[in-house]
Formats: sequence, C-alpha cells, structure tokens
Amino acid sequence: MGKTTLAFLFVLVLSFPGTAIATGIPISDPTAECIDCHASIHPGIVKDWQESRHAKITPSDAMAVEGLARKVSSKTVPEEIRNFAVGCAECHMQRPNEHKDTFDHNGYDIHVVVSPDDCRLCHAEEATQYAKNLMSHAYKNLAENQLYQLHEQSIIGEIDLNSKSKPKATLPASADTKAETCYYCHGTRLKVSGFEIRDTEDVGELEFPIIEGWPNQGVGRINLDGSRGSCSACHTRHLFSIEMARKPHTCRECHIGPDVPAYKVYAASKHGNIYSAMHNNWDFNTVPWTIGKDFGAPTCAACHVSLLTNTDDEVVVERTHQMNNRLPWRIFGLIYAHPHPQNPDTTIIRNKDGLPLPTDFEGGFASNYLIGKDEMESRRKTMQALCLNCHDASWVNGHWRRFENTIRTTNAKTLAGTQIMQEIWKSGHAAGLEQDNNPFDEAIEKKWSETWLFYANTIRFASAMAGGGDYGVYANGRFQLAQTLLELNSWLKLRKSIPGLKLQPHHPSPRIQKFRKEGWGP
Amino acid sequence: MGKTTLAFLFVLVLSFPGTAIATGIPISDPTAECIDCHASIHPGIVKDWQESRHAKITPSDAMAVEGLARKVSSKTVPEEIRNFAVGCAECHMQRPNEHKDTFDHNGYDIHVVVSPDDCRLCHAEEATQYAKNLMSHAYKNLAENQLYQLHEQSIIGEIDLNSKSKPKATLPASADTKAETCYYCHGTRLKVSGFEIRDTEDVGELEFPIIEGWPNQGVGRINLDGSRGSCSACHTRHLFSIEMARKPHTCRECHIGPDVPAYKVYAASKHGNIYSAMHNNWDFNTVPWTIGKDFGAPTCAACHVSLLTNTDDEVVVERTHQMNNRLPWRIFGLIYAHPHPQNPDTTIIRNKDGLPLPTDFEGGFASNYLIGKDEMESRRKTMQALCLNCHDASWVNGHWRRFENTIRTTNAKTLAGTQIMQEIWKSGHAAGLEQDNNPFDEAIEKKWSETWLFYANTIRFASAMAGGGDYGVYANGRFQLAQTLLELNSWLKLRKSIPGLKLQPHHPSPRIQKFRKEGWGP
Amino acid sequence: MGKTTLAFLFVLVLSFPGTAIATGIPISDPTAECIDCHASIHPGIVKDWQESRHAKITPSDAMAVEGLARKVSSKTVPEEIRNFAVGCAECHMQRPNEHKDTFDHNGYDIHVVVSPDDCRLCHAEEATQYAKNLMSHAYKNLAENQLYQLHEQSIIGEIDLNSKSKPKATLPASADTKAETCYYCHGTRLKVSGFEIRDTEDVGELEFPIIEGWPNQGVGRINLDGSRGSCSACHTRHLFSIEMARKPHTCRECHIGPDVPAYKVYAASKHGNIYSAMHNNWDFNTVPWTIGKDFGAPTCAACHVSLLTNTDDEVVVERTHQMNNRLPWRIFGLIYAHPHPQNPDTTIIRNKDGLPLPTDFEGGFASNYLIGKDEMESRRKTMQALCLNCHDASWVNGHWRRFENTIRTTNAKTLAGTQIMQEIWKSGHAAGLEQDNNPFDEAIEKKWSETWLFYANTIRFASAMAGGGDYGVYANGRFQLAQTLLELNSWLKLRKSIPGLKLQPHHPSPRIQKFRKEGWGP
Repeated sequence: MGKTTLAFLFVLVLSFPGTAIATGIPISDPTAECIDCHASIHPGIVKDWQESRHAKITPSDAMAVEGLARKVSSKTVPEEIRNFAVGCAECHMQRPNEHKDTFDHNGYDIHVVVSPDDCRLCHAEEATQYAKNLMSHAYKNLAENQLYQLHEQSIIGEIDLNSKSKPKATLPASADTKAETCYYCHGTRLKVSGFEIRDTEDVGELEFPIIEGWPNQGVGRINLDGSRGSCSACHTRHLFSIEMARKPHTCRECHIGPDVPAYKVYAASKHGNIYSAMHNNWDFNTVPWTIGKDFGAPTCAACHVSLLTNTDDEVVVERTHQMNNRLPWRIFGLIYAHPHPQNPDTTIIRNKDGLPLPTDFEGGFASNYLIGKDEMESRRKTMQALCLNCHDASWVNGHWRRFENTIRTTNAKTLAGTQIMQEIWKSGHAAGLEQDNNPFDEAIEKKWSETWLFYANTIRFASAMAGGGDYGVYANGRFQLAQTLLELNSWLKLRKSIPGLKLQPHHPSPRIQKFRKEGWGP
Repeated sequence: MGKTTLAFLFVLVLSFPGTAIATGIPISDPTAECIDCHASIHPGIVKDWQESRHAKITPSDAMAVEGLARKVSSKTVPEEIRNFAVGCAECHMQRPNEHKDTFDHNGYDIHVVVSPDDCRLCHAEEATQYAKNLMSHAYKNLAENQLYQLHEQSIIGEIDLNSKSKPKATLPASADTKAETCYYCHGTRLKVSGFEIRDTEDVGELEFPIIEGWPNQGVGRINLDGSRGSCSACHTRHLFSIEMARKPHTCRECHIGPDVPAYKVYAASKHGNIYSAMHNNWDFNTVPWTIGKDFGAPTCAACHVSLLTNTDDEVVVERTHQMNNRLPWRIFGLIYAHPHPQNPDTTIIRNKDGLPLPTDFEGGFASNYLIGKDEMESRRKTMQALCLNCHDASWVNGHWRRFENTIRTTNAKTLAGTQIMQEIWKSGHAAGLEQDNNPFDEAIEKKWSETWLFYANTIRFASAMAGGGDYGVYANGRFQLAQTLLELNSWLKLRKSIPGLKLQPHHPSPRIQKFRKEGWGP
Repeated sequence: MGKTTLAFLFVLVLSFPGTAIATGIPISDPTAECIDCHASIHPGIVKDWQESRHAKITPSDAMAVEGLARKVSSKTVPEEIRNFAVGCAECHMQRPNEHKDTFDHNGYDIHVVVSPDDCRLCHAEEATQYAKNLMSHAYKNLAENQLYQLHEQSIIGEIDLNSKSKPKATLPASADTKAETCYYCHGTRLKVSGFEIRDTEDVGELEFPIIEGWPNQGVGRINLDGSRGSCSACHTRHLFSIEMARKPHTCRECHIGPDVPAYKVYAASKHGNIYSAMHNNWDFNTVPWTIGKDFGAPTCAACHVSLLTNTDDEVVVERTHQMNNRLPWRIFGLIYAHPHPQNPDTTIIRNKDGLPLPTDFEGGFASNYLIGKDEMESRRKTMQALCLNCHDASWVNGHWRRFENTIRTTNAKTLAGTQIMQEIWKSGHAAGLEQDNNPFDEAIEKKWSETWLFYANTIRFASAMAGGGDYGVYANGRFQLAQTLLELNSWLKLRKSIPGLKLQPHHPSPRIQKFRKEGWGP
C-alpha cells in the first residue's frame, strides 16, 4: 500500500470513544468534538478519515513539501486551519455564510455539503482546472439544453396511461427519478427547501436542513455555495484517496454503459490486462507518479489526469483536473465525434441550423464553438508524450492514425443512418424536428439513436484505448452498427412496399414549434 | 488474509501421503483414512480443506468461544465429532440412514452429497434461518409453479423441427438441459437411480451411487435426505470460507444476467468502487464483522447476511441466512415489484384471478400472501440501521424515497406495456392466457417479457443499490424500457394499418385450458 | 508475488542512467548500450524487462535446471546469447537477415518485431506446439477464406452514401479499420513498405522501417520473418510474465464479446468466483504448477495450456501451446459446433457443398477435415484428468454429459433457425448464396447470424465452463436464442400475410457467382 513519504513531526495519542488510534497530528478542538460523537455514530466514515492523508498531515507541513511531491497547490491556506489535521471542522465549517445549508449544530455552524470551493482553500489549482472541465458543467449542459431535454424526457419521463400517446413519455420525470438517472452522474442542483427537527437516537431532537437533490456526488452538481462539481465523485469521502481515484473502478461508476463503455473497453485492453494482473505490486500513492517505477501500465487517471514523471524525474505530463486538455476529440454523447468544445458551458453552442449541437445533422462541425487545429495538435502531443514512455513513435503514430480513421468512418456510418432517418421523417412514417416533433421519442427514432449513442461511441472507445477487437466488432461494435443501419432501412422499405398502408397522424408540439421559431434558449 | 483469533490448544504433526502439513488439531481415524488416499487422488479439495477453519479447530473449542465471535450456533454437537477437526468423515458420514446416496466405501458408510441438515449439527441457527429463505425453495417455487413452467418451457424447451409450430419450443427440455440452465442456480432435485461399479485407477473396482441431477450446488437443491438447499452454493467446498462468501464474486455466480444484474450494478456503484480499489486492506474473516475496522464499504453479504458490529462493539444487525428479512420489497423475477411473500414456498400464492402470481396482470398485490406494512417497516429499519453507520439520516431517507419512487414508476411502466400486450392478445395478433395459450412463447410476448424481466428489474437494482446512472438509463435501463414499450406499440399499430392483413390462427392448449378451469395445481 | 526458485550465481551491480537496479546477471554489451539510452526514453518497458525472468537468469543457467521446472525447452541455445541475461539485443538482434524490418541503429542490426521464430531459440517446444495451434493461423484462416470474407465485409466494410445499396457495406474496409477490428485479435499481415528518417528528441535524425499493419499483437500475426503469431499476445512485453499469462485477464483481451464470452462466463463460474476471491494467496509463477499447492481453482491457462502436477509431483497434464489438444469440440465461431479441425489451416476445408466450412448449412460435419472419434476421446480424457484432481468421476462425467447434450441441442436450434432463413431466401424476401448474394449482409441475415454467432456460442461456453445459469439462459443465452428464432419466423409470417406486398429486387454478385462456379479459392 505504498510508502509513507512524509515524516510526522511529533506524536500525540488521542483517545475518543470507540476508537483508539494514534496519530501524529494535532486535531482542532471543533474536530475533536465532532469525532467525540461521530466515531460512535458513524464509525465507517470516521475510520476512513483516520486512514486518510487529511488525518496524517497538517496543511503547514504539506505546504513545506517542495517540488513535484507537493499536494497542496494553494500558495496560502487560512491560518486557522493551517496547523491542524484536515478534519471534520476544517471542511464542514469553512465559509459558513456561503453555504445555504449551514445550520447550528451543538453551537457550531456546520454545512452538510462540502464543495470544490471549500477544497479550493488548499487545492486551488485543481479547483481552477476542474472549473474548466466539461464535467463541472455536466448538470447545466444537460438541464439547460432544450434539445437534450427532449432526449431526456423521452427516456425518463413518465407515461400517461390514459393518453392516446401512450406509451410515449409525456409526463415529466420526478426529481427523484432525475436524481437517480441522468443526474446521478451529471450531478443534481441542490436546494435548501427548509429545516426540520429530527429525533436522533443519541442526543435527542436536533435541527437539520432539508436539501433537495441530496444525496448526490455527480461531477457537475450545483452546490449550495453556487459552485459546480463534487470532488468526492472521484476522491470518495472520507478517504479522499489518490489511490482510489487512480484506479479505474472510480471511473467505472459513470463510464460503463453502452453510451460510454470506457471501463469495459479498458478492462479488455492490453493496458487493462496488465493492470488487472499486476497492480497489486504497484504504488498508487506516490506523487508524482513515476512510469515504470510506480506502475507498469496506465489507468484512466494516468492518461487523463495525473502528474507523471519518468525515471529521470522529468515531468512527462502535468497534472490536470480539466481532463480534456489531453484530448483533441470528443468521441461520445452526440451524433458525431467532433473537436472538443472551447468552453465547458456547451449550452452556448449553436450549429448552422440554430440547434444547440456541436455538429449539424449532416455531421458538419459548429467550428466557431470548437477548438481549432493548433489546439487539437497541442492536445494530441500532450497525450502522445505519455504513450512514448513505453512505445516508439511508429507504434504511437500508427495507433493515432487508426483512431482518426475510426472517427471518420464512424461519423460516415452515422451519417448513413441519419440520412435514412431523415427519409423516414420525410416519408411521414415518423415525425422529427421538421414536423415540430421530438426526434427521439418514437420506436424507430430510438433505433436510430442506438447507432450513434451506443455503437459509434463504443467503436470509438475501442479504437481510442486500443481496447480489443470485440468492442470494435461484436460487443456493441460494428456488427451492431451494420445491423441497426440495415434494420432502419428495412423498416422503411417494408412500409413502402405495403399497398395502401395507413400512416399514423402526427401532431406538432407547440413547445417545439416555439423553440424552432424563437431559438433553443436559454 | 485476516488474523487467527482462536488459540490452538496443542500441536500435533500429521503426515499423510502427498502432503506435509502441520495442524494443531486431532483428526478422527476415519478422516485420516480418507485423507490417506484422497490427498493424492484429489489434492485440490484436500488442500482447500486443510486451509479451512474446519481443519483448524474442533467443535468443542469452537463452542468454547463466547459472545459474538462464536461460529458454532448449535447448543449441542454430537459427542463423536466434538473433539476432532471437522474432516471428511465428520460431514460425509453423518446421519447415514437419512441419505439415499449412502454407500459402503472401504468399510465406511459414506454419502456423496452433504446437506444443510448435516451442517445443522454445528450450525443450527443458520440452517433454520436458511429454511425460511426464499432461496431454499428455489427449486420448488419454479418447478411446481405451472405458470412459471410455461415460461421456462418457452425458453429451454426443445423445438420439433417437423412441427408446424416450429420454432416454438414444444418438446420438453431434458434433465441435462434443465440442470445447466434454470436449475443451475435454483438447484436440482437429486435422486439415486441405482448403483454402479467403477474401475478406479488407484484401488480397482468400487461401487458408487448414480445420482440424477448431480453435480449441482443450486441454492434450492432437493437433497437426498429431503432437505433443501446447498450451503456450498456460497461457502464453496472445501474451504467453506467466510471470506469467499463475504466477497461479491460468490453472488455473481447467479446474480449477473439482465434479469438480476446485482453484481454488475454493485461493481458500478460507489460501494463497489470502494470494494474494488481498497479491499486488499480489509479483513474478511473476523466474526463479528466490524464496520470501519474490518471493512470500509459493504459487500453483498454485509447488507444482506452478516452479523455487523460498530467500533463500540454494539450489534448493528444480527446475522441472517433468511436474507430477505432486511428487505421489504421483492424487486425482480416477476411482472411487478411487490412486498415480499410471507412464506418461502411461493407455490401457494394465488392472485385475484386465481393465478399463482404475487400480483395480478394489472399490478395489484396478492396481499394475503405478502408481508404487511408493519413487517415492511421493520425490515426497512433493519437495513437502514446498517446504512446509518456511514450516512446520516437525510442521506438514507433520500435514498430510500428514491427507491420507493422507482418501484412505483417501474411498476407503472410495466403496466403500460402489459396493457399494450393485452390489446395485442385481444386483437388476435398473438394468443395469451385468455386464448388458452402460453403467454410467453411468441416473439412479441418475448419482447413484452423484456420490459419487466430485464429492464424494470435492472432499473430497480440500480436504484436499490445506488448503482450508478448507467444501469438506470442506458445499460438495460430506462432507455431500453422506453424503446421496448414503443416497439410493442409500433408492432401493433403497423399490423392494424395494413389493409387486409391475414391473422395467424391460434389453437388452444388443452393443458392450459385445464389449468384455467381447474386451477394451477399442485 | 511468488518465490524466486532459482539461485543467482553471482551479483553484479549495474548502473545506467535513470535506473539504479542491482541484478545478478551479466548483460551483453549491445544490450547494455540499448539500455543506456532506452532506460531514459522508454522507462516503462525497460523497467518491466528488469523485473522479468529474462533479466534474472542466463539461458545457460536456465538450461541447467533439470526436470519439470525447466523453462528453456530448446536442447541448444546459440552460444553468443547463452551466458547473458536475455536482454534487448538477445531478441531484437537475432537472425537479422530473416527479418525484413532489420535496420541499422547506432551500428547494430535491429529489428522491431520479435517473432515466435526468435523466441524459438530458447523455447523450441512451445514454438513448435504453437505452430499447430489454430490461433497461429488466425490471420490466414480469416483473410483467405472467401466465405468468411463476405461476413467480414458485411460488418467492417464502408458504406457508399451515393449507392442504391446503402446502407449495405459495399466498399472495402481500410487497412486501419481491419487492424483494429477482426485483425486486432486474429493478427495483421506485417509488411515493410519503406524506411523513413525521424527526428528523435534525444539523438537527432535516425532511420526506421515503415511497417504496415503495425502495431499489432494478434495471435496469428504474419511476421516479417514469415513466421506466424505473437508470443506477446499473452506474454505481454516486456515482462513476458508467466503470472500474467496464467491469469484470466490476458484471455479477456480477445474472449469477451457475445461471440466468444469465455471471460464473462468464467468470471461468473464457481472457478471464477474462487479465483476472484482467493487468488491473492496463490502462486502464479511456479513451474510446474501444482494443483492445491499453488492454486485452488483453474484459470484459463490451467485448463488449456499449463503443465500441471499434483501434490505427489506427478504430471497431471503436459504443457501445450497447441491449446486445442485438450478440446474435442470446437464450440464457437461457426454455424454449428463440430469436432476440431485436423489442421490448423482451415482454409483447406470444403464441406459437402464445396463451401469452405467445417459443417454444411444443415449441420453435417465435413468429417474428412475434422478429428475422429479416437482423437476426440483422447482429448476428452486429457482434459478430464485435470478435473479429476478436485472432482470425482461421477461429477466429471455428469458435467461432460451435459456439455455434449448442449452441443446437440444448440446445433438443433441453430438448424431450426437456418431452416427458417433458407425459407426466407427461397421466398424472395432476402437473397443468399443460392441467389448469388452475400448471405450475411441483410438485416434479417444479421438476425439469423445472432442465433449461432452469439447465442448458441454463449450457451456452449456457459455449459463447457459450468459458467452459471445466467449465460445459459438470460445473458445472451436460451432466452435470446428462443426470441430470435421466433422473430425470424414472425418476420417471414408477417410478410407472407400482407396482401400484394412488393418484393425488393435482388441482383446477383458476379464475385459470388464466380466462387460458386469455380470454387472458393485460394
């Protein structure tokens, strides 16, 4: 489990009820008071914290570390927390006036939800980088894009059993449904709707805030201090472990389905094989993380986040919590792969048809909103610098050429499917945007969605991560893409071949009519 | 690999052929004689046993353990096995007259299949609890429910290539097919059909019983002493390891498919992430199992089976091998989620229409056979007591409210699909129960089955275990549920739109006619 | 991580830039020179090599090992490499005239791609066995079978957006697409297309070969010395680890999709459960590998490759890199399961209809090309000898009887589907071989392909590996097989029921006409 690289300056034995842990770090009075009760009430999280780095070093000592090993990126840290372990109070009592869920708890101002702006006190660079990460806008980018909302509604909305449009989902999804579906990963918008008194087993009646959208650890959560994101999405509370964030299981929480099968592809890749077979011998806790010395094959974090060095102690790539600054291409989630958006707020994008999409339905890029060639080149080079520590240039270039070939060919196949879908809309066998209808809410539209949302995405992940032939072919890959395109076509051909077939009537949606006339928001 | 918490009283070095193991425990003469040969013949299982708790402590010593650490729950243990390691003879020679597979083997009465009633000699409480577990009735509940048998037949039955009904499965599945499909997990009914002489490589001709349904480790196996179940389903022979039973891979053996994707959902949950990343540092062998001290996130066993304590040595939840007594809702396997059955024998249930189902086709509960509100409340509280060791009440309540919302909404969507299916049956485009036909054996009926058997189930698992957005949305979740409902509807609409379409004729099944007139058995 | 079983004769401390590793083995001058630069440039692979067996023993010392523990199977090893660690030069500089990618690199003749014929210098028996392995012919068997090429084309070919046949894939796939799909696992054909000068960061301009088909680690790769295969497919460079090859994650790289779900099935099997829960206590590095002592449940390698002994040091099964000589039946990849081909080159097979298939479309075996009863019996016994170390004969026989029952029943169901497909072709609703058309490139043909390529295969894997009920039933098993057969039938019935339905015209393919008249090549 790695080596402890920081010496403890002095040792102090704490004794609080239910635990008997020796740590070398002074604990603030408020934190000691928290632990006094919570070690008994919540032993799981108190124990995790006790094993965390936060319990084992003060910010002062952490700031004394020089060079790449330094984990506290802030130049200054508030004096009142600088010389204590980073305990309960050091996080849950910071900036009380900023947090709408601050409540009086045994004489202290406590807030439930710790936000990136709390973590920023010590980890300023990471918080700033993360604010540029698409993920930090994952709530807004979905909830405030009216076209995406049509897609969302068609999947998680409720069905009016008495409506003629059954089984279309015409009723809105409840907040509870939203919180455990799209917004489980994207993050919820938190809101304090009041306060309530609960009768606690241990100390009688206490008052707590009622928080809508809670619990949630989604990457784009809107916090009660207005900040975006949740550090605990990856640095799971209360270990806040670098080890856990560096292992691929963290990413699996949200990157596992056919829309974004990163974990599955990784697990079947050569890198994933090496990780699975050998990682018990690696060190996931060292900072910086040294290729060859600490680990033998990249995990998700190695390629996308971590500060890596080589065995000459040279920096191979800088740490980034923006994550996409090693990625020229955005390969999932939309109808076509395209250069990454310039701005993490993608609700501002409009394609040539005025739709809030980074490409048009024919695959053309909304280039004004996307990064340009130079930035793409720079990001490609940053990523490749990493690959080149185990692979020679011909290997890396060959891999990359294949990846960009796959972006082109999957986009071309998605276009073939979209052209058939457009023919279906024109033929009157289904109704899309041109007919002022939701383009995602009919059976055949769901089949079309599969082509780009599942199969083209999976193929691109398999290509990007050299993730084995199966995910590129038979496991939601080119077999299923070919099959689904043929089925779209066969569906239309059959209907055209039936003499006298009666068409279903379609009714324009006033809401969509309005969007198409007046624009898609915000 | 955990710590040995029991002191061995004396040490005795055994030497038998092919092994050279020192253990501190006296071994009975018959067991020593077994090992004499089988250490060479079956080194895999003998070695496992030697590493097991059973080889390392006698029942007497195990019974001397006081308090929660005690693993032998029986108040008394037969004197003849009390002072030896629990070896071959102590299990395979117990209660010889009860076991139909008892045979003479080198002068000993041996039976092949060890049953829960053998294990009961030392582990009485667990055996008694398990008899109340739905799983112990998994064979009977499937094999003796005539409606489930229609479903089973439509999936695993054979096809008569010369029949007009091809490719419907009109011929019965063979015992061999049954044993490796449904009954692999549900358990087979074992039966001694005779004895045979086999020429063994090592000691010449020997007689052995011929056991139909063997091998099998299914949870509801009908044993040769009449008992139900197989402890080795989870406590894999011959380690019988608590560690293995507590890790989630054991449950994965039967809980992995789209009908019951518990393992997949767990692996993608926050809990599963913590387990995957950190469990090498945990202790899976301590009894009781202490939250925070021994493990940092729950596995399947932690929530559903194990005796858990907090770091104050207080019991958080009692051990249960009934397993569903922490579960108010039964969320999979049937058309609608519903309160758990009162009785593990579900063949006795009749819904308002006389069908052997816990709900009717419209989703109404067969409440007379299901647990009531009080019992549901009690079970909810038992489970939540566990959650509260790492989460505060607002977190736990928020999670639970979402879960019950999901039960309601998935039941409502399943109802929408069933209403369309009923319309299809009425329209004559398929034939269901009302037409005295198998409601599961046509292409469109299989599509309907997907809505509740795969997608509603997966969505509920994702909700119950906070298992990530993907299993609730794109990985056999709400996307597929929405799509399949739309396809059911579109299938019917197309047929209604075709002028002059010829309907396929349907023929009533005399067997189903009889069930509908005379009741569904047994 | 296992025990080092070979004593090092003397210790010599090497120091090269960027590393500080002590090893006991002399390193050749050329290898030392390689490491001099590459330890800095490619720390990942140099570090792996330093931890490999190759860095820790000379061939001479390895050859001095007697008995089953010997890993160097060659009787003689070239003198010039015998007394050094097997380093860079010892592999990348062997047989320079044989390798078309040999280039001058700082005065040395280096080749990029190390082949099985290089490895053969020390590992002659393994290389010879592997040449008999179907996998070594995986490139040829796919690329030179014209019927398989029709299947491949229909999946990975490109779509001509302006063609009437859209969305059929009528344009050939590019080399880049091929290399990351079918040939990722099957292996590419490597070819040196020229040489190029690259400006390297560290030492300026250098010349390197341009290799088409690179990178690739596929099992049937055609190497630049004409040999077939890639040892690094399983013994990942540059650890070349037995441990990694013995763990199931290696096989997962290519055996994960619905066509060949070996890893998924294993992971859900009892064996996979035991592996997952307990393997941290096993030793994956010992040779021979002893059942019970070194490991407690088989991995892929244990059953299919490794030299296994029992605890009496008797050989249970010999090592084989042919892999199928413990397998009577070939259970995946084709329309029906059948006895294994006699020759690893399957392009020579012709069925009774002259097609390059090991069975005809009705399921009859092309027996002249397949192994006979005696060989099947012998292979069955070899495999069962292994099972019998943990299971008694009735268990093993019962398992095997079920497996052969499943081969029969899945073949019968596939026949039912193929009969419907043939009826569809005859009816004119699709066009197959009889109509001089690709039998795999229409929507309904893809559905037919699913029956044998995904579902029958998955069912057989679940049976062969006792891999749980779910993969035999609901997880791409008998449920989906039954459903798809019903859908094939329903598809045809609907079309037959529509009065006046217009058939789509079909045009014979001249290429297929030629194959059918003149034979399927080569």
